[in-house]
Amino acid sequence: MKISRYKHDLPYSYALGMTLVMELLLHKPYLTEVVFFNAQTIKDENFKKLVSLCEKFAIPIEENEKIFNILTSKGNCYVIGVFKKFETTLENASHIVLVNPSDAGNLGTILRTIVGFDFKNLIIIRPAVDLFDPKVVRASMGALFHINFKIYDTFNDYLLQYKNNHFYPFMLTSSNIIQEVNFQKPFSLIFGNEATGLPEEYAKIEGALPVRIPHSRNIDSLNLTLAVGIGAFYSTINDWR
Amino acid sequence: MKISRYKHDLPYSYALGMTLVMELLLHKPYLTEVVFFNAQTIKDENFKKLVSLCEKFAIPIEENEKIFNILTSKGNCYVIGVFKKFETTLENASHIVLVNPSDAGNLGTILRTIVGFDFKNLIIIRPAVDLFDPKVVRASMGALFHINFKIYDTFNDYLLQYKNNHFYPFMLTSSNIIQEVNFQKPFSLIFGNEATGLPEEYAKIEGALPVRIPHSRNIDSLNLTLAVGIGAFYSTINDWR
Repeated sequence: MKISRYKHDLPYSYALGMTLVMELLLHKPYLTEVVFFNAQTIKDENFKKLVSLCEKFAIPIEENEKIFNILTSKGNCYVIGVFKKFETTLENASHIVLVNPSDAGNLGTILRTIVGFDFKNLIIIRPAVDLFDPKVVRASMGALFHINFKIYDTFNDYLLQYKNNHFYPFMLTSSNIIQEVNFQKPFSLIFGNEATGLPEEYAKIEGALPVRIPHSRNIDSLNLTLAVGIGAFYSTINDWR
Repeated sequence: MKISRYKHDLPYSYALGMTLVMELLLHKPYLTEVVFFNAQTIKDENFKKLVSLCEKFAIPIEENEKIFNILTSKGNCYVIGVFKKFETTLENASHIVLVNPSDAGNLGTILRTIVGFDFKNLIIIRPAVDLFDPKVVRASMGALFHINFKIYDTFNDYLLQYKNNHFYPFMLTSSNIIQEVNFQKPFSLIFGNEATGLPEEYAKIEGALPVRIPHSRNIDSLNLTLAVGIGAFYSTINDWR
């Protein structure tokens, strides 16, 4: 297998670091093609666990210095997992919908956050940052390996398939503040791009209730990760009692 | 003025980029020592506004290419503001307390977030990342220039001065979930380090009520920025009706 720097059109991607490779082996072993380590890898209990998981699932594990020079820069990563890109099926459940997310770190953190509040289904509307970018995988801390996702070309394509969901677009222009909204399940919480938010047309989706997270005038807007986090937490708050 | 790469013991720091320099000039003009631009700086309306603010406050504004090579790497920054480090006075009000925050980007985002929820007082307990690190300043998007802060060597030093506040340490081990807590003002929301959280002794502070933000077992913990954001939002939720 020839390993090259990550590109969008590769059929595989990389999990960089021990924690992430363990998440990969625990949740998606059948997608793991090979695991690399190098001379600096500490052969501790974690590493033994990793080796035994590789054996269990017949995944090759190889020492290879060069791969680390190609794929990592800082020298703080001593294990790499190579995994096939995959598709998943959405459930008829509550969804998080990101329209045109553009930042890899944000997207990864959002994945982790929504998994943290038990959301299991993520929708992304193109154009968007590549969900399999190793930066997304890393910032997700493995959440990518236990969530369902689907990427659509347009919001309308998604809407046509999930007409029965209740739509809550998050918009700064909405007069409905989140603490006065009674979220009806199954719902779709919809968030726009980091810089531009959602276009006004989202307020006009049939049956949609636009929602606003109130904040002071000292900032233009909350950052996207925080908006999604507060939305995900608040919309399910009664599930946590 | 000889400009060198930022170091903790310098008496000044840097605001990198037009947005940040505007925030600096609007909120802390008297601390601004000099503003630099370079040949790539676009001389648009924003720049004219910047020049007129500099004139108003008698702040030198100079073209200087070299400074940008020293202080910026990506070439996406065309204005730099140099400002004196400053101290502020805390108000007798509700506080956000960060114990040993270690990440510059997180700290900046937290500053912006709490300003977004109208908190005006931040306490940091050492050891901690440098609040004036240009990375913090940048991630704060200028929030550093409109908040009061104080840095203490120990939590006890802070406690002795603000005994009348109600203390809410955020701890994973607490049995009080945030939605069942009735926050009494003025309060102090206390958050631990990104990796280690708060030591158990914080649960034993006299009169303190430990709080937990509930989340699923699929993640170890929420990230610090999100925990602070949800804490800041939820503790003041009735102010936003």
